[in-house]
Amino acid sequence: MDSTCSSFHAAIELIGRRWNGVILNRLLGGSLRFSELRDAVPEVTDAMLTLRLKELETAALVVRSISQTRPIEVRYALTEIGAQLSPVLAAIGQWGAAWDVAVAGGEAGSDEH
Amino acid sequence: MDSTCSSFHAAIELIGRRWNGVILNRLLGGSLRFSELRDAVPEVTDAMLTLRLKELETAALVVRSISQTRPIEVRYALTEIGAQLSPVLAAIGQWGAAWDVAVAGGEAGSDEH
Repeated sequence: MDSTCSSFHAAIELIGRRWNGVILNRLLGGSLRFSELRDAVPEVTDAMLTLRLKELETAALVVRSISQTRPIEVRYALTEIGAQLSPVLAAIGQWGAAWDVAVAGGEAGSDEH
Repeated sequence: MDSTCSSFHAAIELIGRRWNGVILNRLLGGSLRFSELRDAVPEVTDAMLTLRLKELETAALVVRSISQTRPIEVRYALTEIGAQLSPVLAAIGQWGAAWDVAVAGGEAGSDEH
């Protein structure tokens, strides 16, 4: 597998990992506090959200910052490369909507059975 | 969560599930036999490839066809909605390459630490 293929593989699995797509999508609107993110992703547990945010930080997609104010405020934001996912996520959303329609209409591939 | 959000969620997790991105990418070049797909995705086991293909068939992205010739030939191809993933997968590949460079260069987000 060449390097292009391996970065495609890593990228698709990172953004497809459970909750990551939704977390990234929410952060596209601007930085959020942990509690705001949790409220925006209703089914996620605190432990899972923490884990995913750490993974996204390690992958350089998300940056965690701590305010100098009191009370201390921890915020999560997209890095520059993270924000560059915007058109990719939009394309996935558009395809997902078309897929929904195709599956509901029973069109896709059903003539082959 | 509205329906747009839920189809985005389902779509990103389907294409991000281990091996699916690579399988779909290979099928964009045209239909393939099982053995050809297995050779194109070296690390996958037969059992896992079978499972993934069944999932993609259920999701109406892949269609399995059996030739009328002898020996019987089973081929896998993208459905119309499956083939519409082409620009989405290309966008992910392009982003992945940029991400690779950003991470290797230590640029993304490192100024925040």
